[in-house]
Amino acid sequence: MIIVMNARATQADVNHVVDRVKELGLKAHLSQGVERTIIGVIGDERLLKKEQFSLLPLVEDVIPILKPYKLASREFRRENTVVDVAGVKFGDGRLAVIAGPCSVESEEQLLTTARAVKDAGAGLLRGGAYKPRTSPYAFQGLGEEGLKLLAVARQETGMGIVTEVMESSDVDLVARYADLLQVGARNMHNTKLLRALSGVGKPVLLKRNFAATLNEFLMSAEYLLSGGNANVILCERGIRTFVEYTRNTLDLNVVPAVKQLSHLPIIVDPSHGTGRHDFVLPMSRAAVAAGADGLMIEVHPHPAEAFSDGEQSLTPDAFANLMREVREVERALHVTAGA
Amino acid sequence: MIIVMNARATQADVNHVVDRVKELGLKAHLSQGVERTIIGVIGDERLLKKEQFSLLPLVEDVIPILKPYKLASREFRRENTVVDVAGVKFGDGRLAVIAGPCSVESEEQLLTTARAVKDAGAGLLRGGAYKPRTSPYAFQGLGEEGLKLLAVARQETGMGIVTEVMESSDVDLVARYADLLQVGARNMHNTKLLRALSGVGKPVLLKRNFAATLNEFLMSAEYLLSGGNANVILCERGIRTFVEYTRNTLDLNVVPAVKQLSHLPIIVDPSHGTGRHDFVLPMSRAAVAAGADGLMIEVHPHPAEAFSDGEQSLTPDAFANLMREVREVERALHVTAGA
Amino acid sequence: MIIVMNARATQADVNHVVDRVKELGLKAHLSQGVERTIIGVIGDERLLKKEQFSLLPLVEDVIPILKPYKLASREFRRENTVVDVAGVKFGDGRLAVIAGPCSVESEEQLLTTARAVKDAGAGLLRGGAYKPRTSPYAFQGLGEEGLKLLAVARQETGMGIVTEVMESSDVDLVARYADLLQVGARNMHNTKLLRALSGVGKPVLLKRNFAATLNEFLMSAEYLLSGGNANVILCERGIRTFVEYTRNTLDLNVVPAVKQLSHLPIIVDPSHGTGRHDFVLPMSRAAVAAGADGLMIEVHPHPAEAFSDGEQSLTPDAFANLMREVREVERALHVTAGA
Amino acid sequence: MIIVMNARATQADVNHVVDRVKELGLKAHLSQGVERTIIGVIGDERLLKKEQFSLLPLVEDVIPILKPYKLASREFRRENTVVDVAGVKFGDGRLAVIAGPCSVESEEQLLTTARAVKDAGAGLLRGGAYKPRTSPYAFQGLGEEGLKLLAVARQETGMGIVTEVMESSDVDLVARYADLLQVGARNMHNTKLLRALSGVGKPVLLKRNFAATLNEFLMSAEYLLSGGNANVILCERGIRTFVEYTRNTLDLNVVPAVKQLSHLPIIVDPSHGTGRHDFVLPMSRAAVAAGADGLMIEVHPHPAEAFSDGEQSLTPDAFANLMREVREVERALHVTAGA
Repeated sequence: MIIVMNARATQADVNHVVDRVKELGLKAHLSQGVERTIIGVIGDERLLKKEQFSLLPLVEDVIPILKPYKLASREFRRENTVVDVAGVKFGDGRLAVIAGPCSVESEEQLLTTARAVKDAGAGLLRGGAYKPRTSPYAFQGLGEEGLKLLAVARQETGMGIVTEVMESSDVDLVARYADLLQVGARNMHNTKLLRALSGVGKPVLLKRNFAATLNEFLMSAEYLLSGGNANVILCERGIRTFVEYTRNTLDLNVVPAVKQLSHLPIIVDPSHGTGRHDFVLPMSRAAVAAGADGLMIEVHPHPAEAFSDGEQSLTPDAFANLMREVREVERALHVTAGA
Repeated sequence: MIIVMNARATQADVNHVVDRVKELGLKAHLSQGVERTIIGVIGDERLLKKEQFSLLPLVEDVIPILKPYKLASREFRRENTVVDVAGVKFGDGRLAVIAGPCSVESEEQLLTTARAVKDAGAGLLRGGAYKPRTSPYAFQGLGEEGLKLLAVARQETGMGIVTEVMESSDVDLVARYADLLQVGARNMHNTKLLRALSGVGKPVLLKRNFAATLNEFLMSAEYLLSGGNANVILCERGIRTFVEYTRNTLDLNVVPAVKQLSHLPIIVDPSHGTGRHDFVLPMSRAAVAAGADGLMIEVHPHPAEAFSDGEQSLTPDAFANLMREVREVERALHVTAGA
Repeated sequence: MIIVMNARATQADVNHVVDRVKELGLKAHLSQGVERTIIGVIGDERLLKKEQFSLLPLVEDVIPILKPYKLASREFRRENTVVDVAGVKFGDGRLAVIAGPCSVESEEQLLTTARAVKDAGAGLLRGGAYKPRTSPYAFQGLGEEGLKLLAVARQETGMGIVTEVMESSDVDLVARYADLLQVGARNMHNTKLLRALSGVGKPVLLKRNFAATLNEFLMSAEYLLSGGNANVILCERGIRTFVEYTRNTLDLNVVPAVKQLSHLPIIVDPSHGTGRHDFVLPMSRAAVAAGADGLMIEVHPHPAEAFSDGEQSLTPDAFANLMREVREVERALHVTAGA
Repeated sequence: MIIVMNARATQADVNHVVDRVKELGLKAHLSQGVERTIIGVIGDERLLKKEQFSLLPLVEDVIPILKPYKLASREFRRENTVVDVAGVKFGDGRLAVIAGPCSVESEEQLLTTARAVKDAGAGLLRGGAYKPRTSPYAFQGLGEEGLKLLAVARQETGMGIVTEVMESSDVDLVARYADLLQVGARNMHNTKLLRALSGVGKPVLLKRNFAATLNEFLMSAEYLLSGGNANVILCERGIRTFVEYTRNTLDLNVVPAVKQLSHLPIIVDPSHGTGRHDFVLPMSRAAVAAGADGLMIEVHPHPAEAFSDGEQSLTPDAFANLMREVREVERALHVTAGA
């Protein structure tokens, strides 16, 4: 941590800060510049609070040097984490694909979709049983009945199941049915839910909140990792900006950013990320080209009749075409990687 | 709802859409423009899903006409809702002030603060017992022990208590201690929590998520209202933008926007909204001048030692000065209102 | 244009609006909904101002139906515009690449870079002679001397030249040297410059302002097109968001958005778009996979010594590697397109 | 400037950076932390480029300590700058008000408005003769004819004139007519215009670009100050965010931020800042309460017929009411300031 003194600070002001640093059991290291004195604080800054120094007289700024996360950092673990979900691997250099409807609506809808996405090459089946909806008047999901239908679909197709859990009290129930538990974007900051999931013994898919910085995103992962769950997959699904032609702004820049700073795998959800079925194909190709470890795609047999998110759902045929195209892009990357 | 057909749409395409409108039990009303045909859909559009039309061939756009919320709208209820919290009124034209520490830390810290803010003229005492923190390594609140200390402070000072509830399963417990239950910004979209609070029989303080549009903010209020809780107070506490000199961008424009579209009272939290103790005073004055029904201010006897949010906390003296200044601004508004 | 009346509007209020519509020589078309009356205005809405209606009594909203641009729209021209710059084509389905230093610094720096990027397969050479810099103390470009060096580089390498013009009064001078005149992001709204460029007889590269909506971006193109210059290439170079890990947020979603709404070619500048040399490669691959018609890449023989933007410049070797990788991605797209 | 070495940096890597620092004629100061070595660079960092260090091996981050602006800083000049425009003072603790139409349309429109705003207490008259419009099909201003009408209005009313200049080549012409030359938000980054205005001998009103950080805003002021023009007034007029209920998000937080970091006066334009005539009154009161030195308000005798920006214009009556209300708020501030 670096403490920057104001230009008007006297030697007494500097001494006062240094004394405070020492009181807290840390070492201070002074550097007298032309216009400012700066004080390096030596010790574990993750245990400090900025305001312990920023509110002292004539302190102009307090600058953290270390990232706030530790276990999620590439520095802590240099090699990529590979997460295995029902035999599908995330982070091993090959593209993993999750597909399925936004909401589980009926056995027929789910099974039709499940078979179609499996045939097209998807590895895992997604489907929401508990739905966080903006409107109290909208469909809120089938609840446990939906989970049971997902279990049927797993039995029928052999595909592992990805579904959202919305509260800590639901974790045990959902974990009985799911192979990968999804934390939705609206819940990325739900620390009680994260704590409950850190002990659940199943992998977690952590979606980025649409207003989360990368530090915040990785700090939510840190909740899971520090609680004992090492199997975390990150997911970009769009951020909120002033842009009007997409529901959210899918931010593919986060893919190389995560690859640099963390060892965790990251996948991309272009369905929520754009909110537009006609953008899902080009942005899926782009996500793969940017280096994403996987994709999550919404598919529905009749998008216009979907209970939720129809505007961003692909038909099974469109999904099959998408799979062909992203596989070509994946191949191109392997060629250039000499793989 | 207005359906805009593409310029290349034929009569058959238009008829196809009209047929679909009728199938859904609604009426269609055609308007043939110079470059486009538009179709007005007559019926309750809140029951429709955009994609039921947007995915039909040659439909270019589907434009909702009505706001998605109903009970929260000024149209539904023209006069201002006044919410009474332990005798303090929000929305009656006079300024209501909530003050206290970010976190409850100890009996001494809480009582010292409570007495000071009461003396300065605050109406309600705030204090967090359950804290949603970005870092798993940060102080997470005293839990029920904190609630008990709040009860002591109420008994000592006679002030009503405002405290956050983080999960639906905690609602009953927190409601036993609190006079006003706070939904934090990170939980504005937590629909299970909102549903639980809609039946709790106590007023709710709903903080705006830092990425929430006004429609989304009022839809969260709609969850509470439609579940039977009419006592909802809205709170602006800053949005996320590119701006770097405040932790969030306190958006005072939302105050006249809410006044126009809703009957619910709205207060402003400049402590979280700016994240800077030195901005709390000018932005509090500005909030009152913009027409806010109240303020929520963080106060701590020793901000540099606060367990959380010290950088945005006022000392008791600074708070007393703030109260004097905002009362003058309030008086100025009453003069011009002829009150 | 659709005029939505307030729920409290009387027949007289509606008539008042209809009379105003007729006074302006347009036709009104009424649609009586359950909760609202809406009035369709039939005529060329691009000639109307919203406030001619929005300020009338009991008008709640005025919703434009048509896009504000015309000549730039896909509707006006269905086939893709192909822009030829010194023999390099933009928009014909093959990837066009512009590369070179941010600023022209010296003959040696420029020629070294020019030869390297040509060898690696770039089609055009970029280099700034006039530089819009945030700081008055930073290097502002060599001016006409820089243009002359660009002319030397063209003669030496045969590559066409891309360079920025900053003011209408410089257009003639810069046009004498450049094959493609660049409007920088900060000048996208400079209407005097756009008007001057609409008559210059050379193609224009129009960079998106970092806060521009798509409507605004295409309206700037409309200035060029309506003034008589049909050779416009659009360029995405990042938008301003809350995100901290890139200098700007490169928004690849704009690529499919432009392809849908406009016939103009669009290229991507990942150097400015991310501000980070280590993100240029993955985001270039992603841009190509998203369907961009070209790339613009900053290359410098010694990035750490660059007069400007060294942090986002590639070395010639890194650029050569980038060209190999993006060509593979381009090939993958052609495979799936059956080309 | 602080250079943070990566955790894997060896002594040789550190030495390499230190050597580079010395080569550039600066001093290096090492601080060995628990997890990182950091190097303080002592010397004038405004003359350095970050990439001279950030691209060296094993450098993790380069953190500037000083603000990039100097002459605009509060540190350079502690007392407030007071700018006198035709006898109206900005920055002396009393509220200065500029009012008038968005565009100069005709002598009658201008004189009617000028007399009305003068009667209501405005100090200066605004009116645009050169208009930067998003659409090439919209009214672009009367040009020099508009300037002449402004001169007539000055003669008739005695009020000083505020008008926009759009290009460096227009500076001399506009300066002959204007008392205060306005740089519009779209031109805040137009460095040629800023340079021309730095030598014009008249005060400048510098509007914040809607995507400008505070550093960028003050760097544009620095162009003016470093070129010799000390009479600079800053103006907040809204930033671009995701928010939908205002055309821009008026960011009043910038007022205390500027007051802290700079000695320059800052005024607020709630007309452009909100884009809504019905928000101008509450946000004007709020701006004054936040500490703004002045207001700029659009007034038009018939807003619905305005050639531009009618939706955000006040009628003369509404403006007179606004003046009464903001004077009351100003008085409240003086009471609390003991003035």
